[in-house]
Amino acid sequence: MRRLGVLLSGRGSNFEAIARAIGEGRLEAAIAVVISNKAEAAGLETARLMGFSAVAIPSKGVERARHDALVADELERHGVDLVCLAGYMRLLTPALIKRYPERILNIHPSLLPAFPGLDAQKQAWEHGVRVAGCTVHLVNEALDAGPIVMQAAVPVLETDTIESLSHRILAEEHRIYSQAIARVLRGGWRVDGRRIVWE
Amino acid sequence: MRRLGVLLSGRGSNFEAIARAIGEGRLEAAIAVVISNKAEAAGLETARLMGFSAVAIPSKGVERARHDALVADELERHGVDLVCLAGYMRLLTPALIKRYPERILNIHPSLLPAFPGLDAQKQAWEHGVRVAGCTVHLVNEALDAGPIVMQAAVPVLETDTIESLSHRILAEEHRIYSQAIARVLRGGWRVDGRRIVWE
Repeated sequence: MRRLGVLLSGRGSNFEAIARAIGEGRLEAAIAVVISNKAEAAGLETARLMGFSAVAIPSKGVERARHDALVADELERHGVDLVCLAGYMRLLTPALIKRYPERILNIHPSLLPAFPGLDAQKQAWEHGVRVAGCTVHLVNEALDAGPIVMQAAVPVLETDTIESLSHRILAEEHRIYSQAIARVLRGGWRVDGRRIVWE
Repeated sequence: MRRLGVLLSGRGSNFEAIARAIGEGRLEAAIAVVISNKAEAAGLETARLMGFSAVAIPSKGVERARHDALVADELERHGVDLVCLAGYMRLLTPALIKRYPERILNIHPSLLPAFPGLDAQKQAWEHGVRVAGCTVHLVNEALDAGPIVMQAAVPVLETDTIESLSHRILAEEHRIYSQAIARVLRGGWRVDGRRIVWE
């Protein structure tokens, strides 16, 4: 059974969706540990209540390299095969990425390469797109720019607000993240330039 | 009946799709004239065979401002209300755009703002996106950056080539362009910044 490490900073609704997919037999994997850089993250408490190992490694006032080394050590201690960022509001250091080469996933609430960075749903809405969506990608050292594993599109309705659009995107995030994890764990792919080639 | 002017440089398959939509009663409008900057454009011959006014205004060796003035004059002569670019491989001059403010549409084979410019399908494929698509937008002076009227998404399959992907996108172009034209003609919208606001 492949072991997932989940990193989160907030509510962790994508973490809950992954746990649900495992619980319902849609994803064959085990959540080995949930780590947050914020001790007060609601997702950490949820993880505890669900019976998972939940670890706070506070980042505040800690040097980035030092913090990421602690995170990587914790992931290794739990024998993590694949790291899943789920609303983890920090850029990873190259050193951490090198310890999990092509084994860190992130989910981003836009159809990348459009609208990287913060408030992607708002960026999309203000741009006036009529199709929005979300992206699961491998994490590399560039912000929201690693090779794309899976994407889902949603319509932007004429009556939408940023909130209603964000809600629709989030539902798709919850749907595709566990599918993308399963696809990555199944193997039969390699990274070629910035594409994933499916074999 | 609102009158459309179609500009094309090549095969004009999007022009044919518009003509089909009108013929099948899915779009209430009339094609007033089809203009090409290339006398040998296959789309011009198709237009003639279908019984439309088809006019070549060769651009080769003609100064841009002069050429666009001739095009605008021809559009006006045919009482055109809305200009539809259908594979028209030229940037419009500001003077032409000013003569049809918010009344020029283009279709682009990507989910803008991703992949503007030439070979958008290839750009998307090489980027490794898993969702591609097409965009109908109002034409302003920036390349492929006018306010978005309509978009359609298509999946990128693991087995796709650039060709199979382009084919899938083109089918959606043919589907949405006439829908977008109908939506624009129906009114009840205004441009706010770079968004279209639907009232």
